[in-house]
Amino acid sequence: MATEFHPENVSLAQDGRAVRIIDQTLLPGRLRFIELSTPEECYDAIARLAVRGAPAIGVFAGFSLAVIAGNMLQGRRDGVFGEADLHALQDRADYLASSRPTAVNLSWALERMMGLARRCVGSRCGDVRAALLAEAHAIQQEDAAMCKSMAELGLGLIEDGWGLITHCNAGPLATSCYGTALGPILLGTERGMRFRVFADETRPLLQGARLTAYELDRAGVDVTLICDGMSSAVMRQGWVQACFVGADRVAANGDTANKIGTSNLAIVAKRYGVPFYVMCPSSTLDFSCKTGDDIPIELRRGEEIKQMFFSEPVAPEGVACYNPSFDVTDNDLIIAIVTEKGICRPPFTESLAAVRDR
Amino acid sequence: MATEFHPENVSLAQDGRAVRIIDQTLLPGRLRFIELSTPEECYDAIARLAVRGAPAIGVFAGFSLAVIAGNMLQGRRDGVFGEADLHALQDRADYLASSRPTAVNLSWALERMMGLARRCVGSRCGDVRAALLAEAHAIQQEDAAMCKSMAELGLGLIEDGWGLITHCNAGPLATSCYGTALGPILLGTERGMRFRVFADETRPLLQGARLTAYELDRAGVDVTLICDGMSSAVMRQGWVQACFVGADRVAANGDTANKIGTSNLAIVAKRYGVPFYVMCPSSTLDFSCKTGDDIPIELRRGEEIKQMFFSEPVAPEGVACYNPSFDVTDNDLIIAIVTEKGICRPPFTESLAAVRDR
Repeated sequence: MATEFHPENVSLAQDGRAVRIIDQTLLPGRLRFIELSTPEECYDAIARLAVRGAPAIGVFAGFSLAVIAGNMLQGRRDGVFGEADLHALQDRADYLASSRPTAVNLSWALERMMGLARRCVGSRCGDVRAALLAEAHAIQQEDAAMCKSMAELGLGLIEDGWGLITHCNAGPLATSCYGTALGPILLGTERGMRFRVFADETRPLLQGARLTAYELDRAGVDVTLICDGMSSAVMRQGWVQACFVGADRVAANGDTANKIGTSNLAIVAKRYGVPFYVMCPSSTLDFSCKTGDDIPIELRRGEEIKQMFFSEPVAPEGVACYNPSFDVTDNDLIIAIVTEKGICRPPFTESLAAVRDR
Repeated sequence: MATEFHPENVSLAQDGRAVRIIDQTLLPGRLRFIELSTPEECYDAIARLAVRGAPAIGVFAGFSLAVIAGNMLQGRRDGVFGEADLHALQDRADYLASSRPTAVNLSWALERMMGLARRCVGSRCGDVRAALLAEAHAIQQEDAAMCKSMAELGLGLIEDGWGLITHCNAGPLATSCYGTALGPILLGTERGMRFRVFADETRPLLQGARLTAYELDRAGVDVTLICDGMSSAVMRQGWVQACFVGADRVAANGDTANKIGTSNLAIVAKRYGVPFYVMCPSSTLDFSCKTGDDIPIELRRGEEIKQMFFSEPVAPEGVACYNPSFDVTDNDLIIAIVTEKGICRPPFTESLAAVRDR
């Protein structure tokens, strides 16, 4: 099963006193697990992309807050969880939420955990800890179920033998199961279908080369790595029948924030008449953003472009860089947004609202 | 003067027995000159991109063939240059021409040198050598003059204060003077104009980061390095008023082969209504290619994507790569092709033919 590549993607360790993750910055060279227990360690894991992918960040945030609460309440198992505890936990949740501004699943998961914590005021601390851990597990299990549902829906959009292209990594490492964008590919492959998949390397952090090529290769999928600027050359040959990408936040009108370079791919796909699909759980929809212009875009250090991964700097010292971690793909470039609750087509303002209300 | 950054870009050494170039693979970290004298050394310098940029490759090929001829005829200064010598030199020219198939300036320069050699049969070997060296110098001087002419024409297309974007490197290192695509920027800067230039890093070989950022930074131009997938994010902000790129070969209908990723940039520019200009000497026009489909595209090793420049491989061993060195930008994406003889606008079949016949 494709889901077995990373059964331990995000899990508990030390009897629930730490979160255990794969340090994704070291892949594909090394498969190393790390265990995190303080707010600072959890923040850092998100910020430096040791854990990444919008759904996986949400799951990780849930486990992190449960672990942090448990450690905060340690030694008071039979004491009462009071307002002061709630405020202290809220501070830690706000801190974690500030680690990456664009992915809405992060704040969504933290808000869900804090909602439970608010309802727990007055309860026994030991019970609160158990309830938070159970809630985090529920988020993870729901994410896995959503991935399976999305994969089924996405598989209905493609045919055996097709060429596909994807950007960044929206596979098992980014989620709790098949992934979002890679879901149809992995599910179809399990069922004996064959696809030829082109993976954008995804500069500057190379998630496509390091993670997508790794996951698809291990799953026995025919994967070809290309640089981000090669998608036009590939599509011009007629080798691609559909594009699949994930999303970090989708506005009410369907404008989609996803890894930088997604918008370029969507524009190129439209030029060649290749359908462009966004795959994301409904928790990625943010109706408080009317359009993509309302989505905050995280800016990261230029060093990621000039130096990271390289054996020596590839640009002169002092040269300015612009390094947005995400871009916005305009809704008119998107053929459909696939959620676990159904496939949304234009006009997205209506079809996404229908999914929310379902 | 901008032209003084690399006065020794391609020159003679060892009293005309070697060609001297900057090893561009080592920039920006090290500025090292290398001297080449055998056909194998000259072939290798082109193939591994120690010398690169279509016009510079043409100039280098001219000097290389003159040096190779001189060394071949060494000790026979007063002997006669015969048919056997011509055939031997033709073999070496054919060998050099096979080093990179896409750039037409390479075969154009070699053919020009061999045309002179054919007219020299029966002449004194010492005179033939001198004539070939003079012809190579003439190619270089003409290239410099063409760059200046193109820079003037290109400067007429832009305004002080504009944001510009370029891909790969088409600056002084790629030519004998200002460069092609960077010509208007460098000439305008000399005249006190200010531009904000975005340089695509240009994967996989990073000519934008290593060479364009280096050249523009040294010239005092406000340059910002971005990854290739960021051009949509930059244009969506309204920061770019024009795109300038060079060309390796232009078909009779205006379809343009240039560094891989150029086509993506052109498609994105069209989406945002940003004019896209190709700058190339008329020697880049290949009327034997009716459309871009007739232009041979060089495929290079996947190792350039997975390993080169990196401190360790960034993709799993064994994963396939597709690594075309060039792509074709369809003529409908191009607002104008700027040659030293004038600015060609659609329909290009007519405007390019007019330049040829001028």
